[in-house]
Amino acid sequence: MKTTPLKIELPGWLTARIASAGPLRDVRARMAFAIELSRENVEHGTGGPFGAVIVDTETGRLLSAGVNLVEQQMNSVLHAEVVAIMFAQRALGAWTLAGPGRHKYEIVTSSAPCAMCLGALLWSGAVALVCGARTEDVQAIGFDEGPVFDESFDYLQQRGVLIVRDVMREEARAVLREYRARGGTIYNR
Amino acid sequence: MKTTPLKIELPGWLTARIASAGPLRDVRARMAFAIELSRENVEHGTGGPFGAVIVDTETGRLLSAGVNLVEQQMNSVLHAEVVAIMFAQRALGAWTLAGPGRHKYEIVTSSAPCAMCLGALLWSGAVALVCGARTEDVQAIGFDEGPVFDESFDYLQQRGVLIVRDVMREEARAVLREYRARGGTIYNR
Repeated sequence: MKTTPLKIELPGWLTARIASAGPLRDVRARMAFAIELSRENVEHGTGGPFGAVIVDTETGRLLSAGVNLVEQQMNSVLHAEVVAIMFAQRALGAWTLAGPGRHKYEIVTSSAPCAMCLGALLWSGAVALVCGARTEDVQAIGFDEGPVFDESFDYLQQRGVLIVRDVMREEARAVLREYRARGGTIYNR
Repeated sequence: MKTTPLKIELPGWLTARIASAGPLRDVRARMAFAIELSRENVEHGTGGPFGAVIVDTETGRLLSAGVNLVEQQMNSVLHAEVVAIMFAQRALGAWTLAGPGRHKYEIVTSSAPCAMCLGALLWSGAVALVCGARTEDVQAIGFDEGPVFDESFDYLQQRGVLIVRDVMREEARAVLREYRARGGTIYNR
């Protein structure tokens, strides 16, 4: 086994998009950006139809962004939310986004998270989860979302994570359908 | 946001242990190694009391190993199982451990996986999950395991993942207790 450091690299187009992003003032601006990333990921052929951003809840300043990089980085863990969480924590130099004296951060994702990402979100320290497309929309194009149940979302809410659903759901679904129409890889089937 | 590649680095002691590991012929040898890694991670102060290995089910050849690196790498995603999965897929140059003509791989973890890791395992392509300590043992020292239910394990089994529990449970629990006794950080509380 190769034990040299493992590198996770963002596609060039995403780096450019992040560099030019201004504050995302409201929930629609945040979701529109996450959906735009999901669409560009499909158009550039760099991964699955999923995008996520982590922003300062109050100011909308972009802390990090991620897209699905499973195929591109040959790493099944690299869903959009996981990528966004890892880069956000590196930006803060901390293993949690929460903490006394720290800004509050929320994760805005183009589709409701799979079982892995919902768990990852709980450990991330984000105070809120905002979802575009629903779990059933992701399943409708053939993806398995894993063991994620209504109770899973309830569990997060009981621990203080605010959950907001169906934000620009139709726009997010359109990207899912576009991906299927192009014959994109359906992992985890 | 810094968009340069994100690096995940294994502690030096783990690199050395991996380099000198021979085949792990049976389930006890595999679990003993995973537990040993969990113990060394506590002793070296490099993270939480969790270790995992991914081995060729038939030959016991070690494909990868991971320990909890949350604090050390400032990254809440880096639980032992996730680290093992990412390095295993890099070793194979593939986003799944499964596939036609490929060996079959299993993941052996010192404690039953949290919600995130159970999801990650389903996407990894491993054919089996072998657990030492139980979810309740991890919770007993104060860790939250997230939204992982009996139904979550059933879900994996229904998709063909073999699940084996309680292998060397007492040995695995001893490391959890040792970690608590030393006052180790309890993330996700």
